[in-house]
Amino acid sequence: MSENKWQTAITDIGKNKINLRGYPIEKLMGNASFAQVAYLAIFGELPDEKTGKMIDTIIVSSVDHGVTPPSILSALTVASTGASLSASIAAGIMSINKFHGGAIENCMKMLTEAVELQTANGLSTEEAAKKLVTDYRATKKRLFGYGHRVHSEDPRKVRLIELAKELGFYGPAVQMSVAIEQAIQEVLGRNLPLNVDGAIGAVLCELKVPPELANAFFILSRTAGIIAHVYEERTRQKPMRKVEPGNWEYDGPAEREL
Amino acid sequence: MSENKWQTAITDIGKNKINLRGYPIEKLMGNASFAQVAYLAIFGELPDEKTGKMIDTIIVSSVDHGVTPPSILSALTVASTGASLSASIAAGIMSINKFHGGAIENCMKMLTEAVELQTANGLSTEEAAKKLVTDYRATKKRLFGYGHRVHSEDPRKVRLIELAKELGFYGPAVQMSVAIEQAIQEVLGRNLPLNVDGAIGAVLCELKVPPELANAFFILSRTAGIIAHVYEERTRQKPMRKVEPGNWEYDGPAEREL
Amino acid sequence: MSENKWQTAITDIGKNKINLRGYPIEKLMGNASFAQVAYLAIFGELPDEKTGKMIDTIIVSSVDHGVTPPSILSALTVASTGASLSASIAAGIMSINKFHGGAIENCMKMLTEAVELQTANGLSTEEAAKKLVTDYRATKKRLFGYGHRVHSEDPRKVRLIELAKELGFYGPAVQMSVAIEQAIQEVLGRNLPLNVDGAIGAVLCELKVPPELANAFFILSRTAGIIAHVYEERTRQKPMRKVEPGNWEYDGPAEREL
Amino acid sequence: MSENKWQTAITDIGKNKINLRGYPIEKLMGNASFAQVAYLAIFGELPDEKTGKMIDTIIVSSVDHGVTPPSILSALTVASTGASLSASIAAGIMSINKFHGGAIENCMKMLTEAVELQTANGLSTEEAAKKLVTDYRATKKRLFGYGHRVHSEDPRKVRLIELAKELGFYGPAVQMSVAIEQAIQEVLGRNLPLNVDGAIGAVLCELKVPPELANAFFILSRTAGIIAHVYEERTRQKPMRKVEPGNWEYDGPAEREL
Repeated sequence: MSENKWQTAITDIGKNKINLRGYPIEKLMGNASFAQVAYLAIFGELPDEKTGKMIDTIIVSSVDHGVTPPSILSALTVASTGASLSASIAAGIMSINKFHGGAIENCMKMLTEAVELQTANGLSTEEAAKKLVTDYRATKKRLFGYGHRVHSEDPRKVRLIELAKELGFYGPAVQMSVAIEQAIQEVLGRNLPLNVDGAIGAVLCELKVPPELANAFFILSRTAGIIAHVYEERTRQKPMRKVEPGNWEYDGPAEREL
Repeated sequence: MSENKWQTAITDIGKNKINLRGYPIEKLMGNASFAQVAYLAIFGELPDEKTGKMIDTIIVSSVDHGVTPPSILSALTVASTGASLSASIAAGIMSINKFHGGAIENCMKMLTEAVELQTANGLSTEEAAKKLVTDYRATKKRLFGYGHRVHSEDPRKVRLIELAKELGFYGPAVQMSVAIEQAIQEVLGRNLPLNVDGAIGAVLCELKVPPELANAFFILSRTAGIIAHVYEERTRQKPMRKVEPGNWEYDGPAEREL
Repeated sequence: MSENKWQTAITDIGKNKINLRGYPIEKLMGNASFAQVAYLAIFGELPDEKTGKMIDTIIVSSVDHGVTPPSILSALTVASTGASLSASIAAGIMSINKFHGGAIENCMKMLTEAVELQTANGLSTEEAAKKLVTDYRATKKRLFGYGHRVHSEDPRKVRLIELAKELGFYGPAVQMSVAIEQAIQEVLGRNLPLNVDGAIGAVLCELKVPPELANAFFILSRTAGIIAHVYEERTRQKPMRKVEPGNWEYDGPAEREL
Repeated sequence: MSENKWQTAITDIGKNKINLRGYPIEKLMGNASFAQVAYLAIFGELPDEKTGKMIDTIIVSSVDHGVTPPSILSALTVASTGASLSASIAAGIMSINKFHGGAIENCMKMLTEAVELQTANGLSTEEAAKKLVTDYRATKKRLFGYGHRVHSEDPRKVRLIELAKELGFYGPAVQMSVAIEQAIQEVLGRNLPLNVDGAIGAVLCELKVPPELANAFFILSRTAGIIAHVYEERTRQKPMRKVEPGNWEYDGPAEREL
């Protein structure tokens, strides 16, 4: 073993001691939610109550979007061959990348750019949004976080913005994300509403989450959905069936109230 | 495409509609915790408040146990080669199997067997525990969920049993898990305290979770810890370093109060 | 570091020395084929020429079977999200399990059982085959390695048996695999020809490969096919397309002679 | 299913027909080596004999380099938890990335740049090599493919260059790779010999393999080594042991002749 030890600041382990970022794990259990503890593990500090609730809402929003995303299709395809639970889940997670979930990170960078543009030039949110959209059109750069192949007004987006207002996160990035939607309409003449990736990205900007960790929350969240689908595959489907993305139907409970 | 569509009962997707097990996702957001929604996704029904809190506690308990478990070492080894965030996390998850996390499932089966033994033979919890341990010794079967290489009295175990009592889950399986600890002492003359795997297994029995899904909650929980370690690897360590399991030191915050 | 070192018998590394199972790697390069060297790495000894050729033929036979097997579909699904080359390939490999490739191992165990039956009871190959099929029918056990959803006379099977004869591997297991095909016809009245999994399994029995390594050769072989498909996905397809198992067409070269 | 079918040019499947890039698979079996068939699958054409032999040599060279590379450590760590064969192998493959194997691709790009520099400026190989090294020093760019933490004269490198000469691949890129070694000595005053990654990269340039596929051959090759190590882990080691990178010893056969 080399003389030089490597350092880790996450968990201190000793006899009958498991301190996560300094907090005894048994004190966290029952007193902090999983969302708060996940945040603590990743960022090193417990979030305040509102931040914890916002994180909880974000990871609830992305738990599942049915069987068609690659994160579910790859998990089902692997599960259908008799793979273990962990290997099936891993295959699902491996498909969360640049083109699946990646819009969150890209949108965060774009919103940061827009807010910097606003500050540097003493512009209003609306002016900065318009300038960004105009600049992006001129340089043919893609606007991330707008438009959805299924939803015209994504209910997750609406609820995220609503909760951001309630919890005190309707700051510059979230306001900018809304203003850009309007600017797209005015400058490009297109109706490309802010989508759930864009809304999550905007809120994560307010929470000071680094863009390169955007997908981490999506992965954490979707892991629950992947587990649900893998379990369904194992209990309802035959081995080695063809997992056809477009040929399914929903046969679960009808819409119900909470 | 074949005529026959395949069925899924998890999420109903339509234009501006994302209903998880019947509940519009936007109603869940802000009103149900991630632990509750993960449970809903996997089992099909929202847990009552106490079940939700118990699940939350369980997934908080297993978020992290430092750098030495294979779930972290494999993630760090893969991350150190420049792998993507999702591939690094997947590599960590892939090491949660029979010998890492698997004791939960085996303990659940053993506890179920012991409780059936108790009921079938009209025994007390203590008598059934003693019989099980004696039988297992005779047939050289392994008792899962007892003993730990580091902890003599795992603080997570203690807290889980405490909360199980508080929340109304101190039922036959949890009682049996405690009685078996005593029986091991009496029959085998060994001090092998119930460990965290055993305690989680016992509580999951009370929650009627199928044993084959025991690892699912461990995977969901540990995903947060894996993310934290992968992020630390990327921000604090050099590429292609040797990830030596025994040569680290903790340099995070000292013990602190919640 | 603990006092006790762990042992490995595969490769000895020193300054300017890389000895694989004792052979300097530079002596193997150019003098032994990849099939021979893979065999050496896995089993510890260089195969004789005929064994090497047989292994080479087996791994050639399974390189690819088009886009529909799960090993390709999972790789393509993951690749379409922008995953790295290695993660895409890994996702393909992760779907080679009990129900995809696993028939080889099961067939090996069945053939071994049949040959033991033959020896123990002093039967002819045909008699033993008939007894096995009759026994399996009576106990409703599945016969692995017979029948194919596409091929009635799999060209790979035919060629493997032919080469097994040429190279001196038409021994008890291969003969039994052919006799069982006949016995199925006679006993069950069904036409279930030996398939490629069965033929590979039979030949691997002659080569004394342990059944639990049967899938290793399939994985090694299919890795080449997975690479080809992932590369095609990256160069010919758009990100996040729907990978529909049944909706493709072949547009490569027409049949041609070697 | 959409009207539009997706195209694949790799394998044409029909009843009793499996044509890989147009060649009936049963014609390839026994008549072409795995290295040739892998090349065919990936690039679409059968290599001529010398190209096939060069590819075979390259994939022989990288089969294994002992237990310390991340491709082996991650596979062993995952295997030690009771993971399946395919999941263990996949974990190994997932660690072949930018910093493990990636030097091949980077070296290919650098050699291509150097050869272009040579052609564009009418320089000798030596002059171009010197100019490249000087330019890289000035702009602090890294030279990929030179130096090794263990080997001062990597036997695989020596043999690859030797065979490149024999087989007719001692072209501009390979010559440049050798000249750069000399230029590093002269310009930087350092002894950084061409390593195996650099030599493979140079030869792959001669074979017109696209740089983004460099790691594909490393992955294909190392899969054999990963299988050997996973099999050894399963047959010689205890579950959940600590896989310590620096604490092993070789106990296989002593050096022997081919």
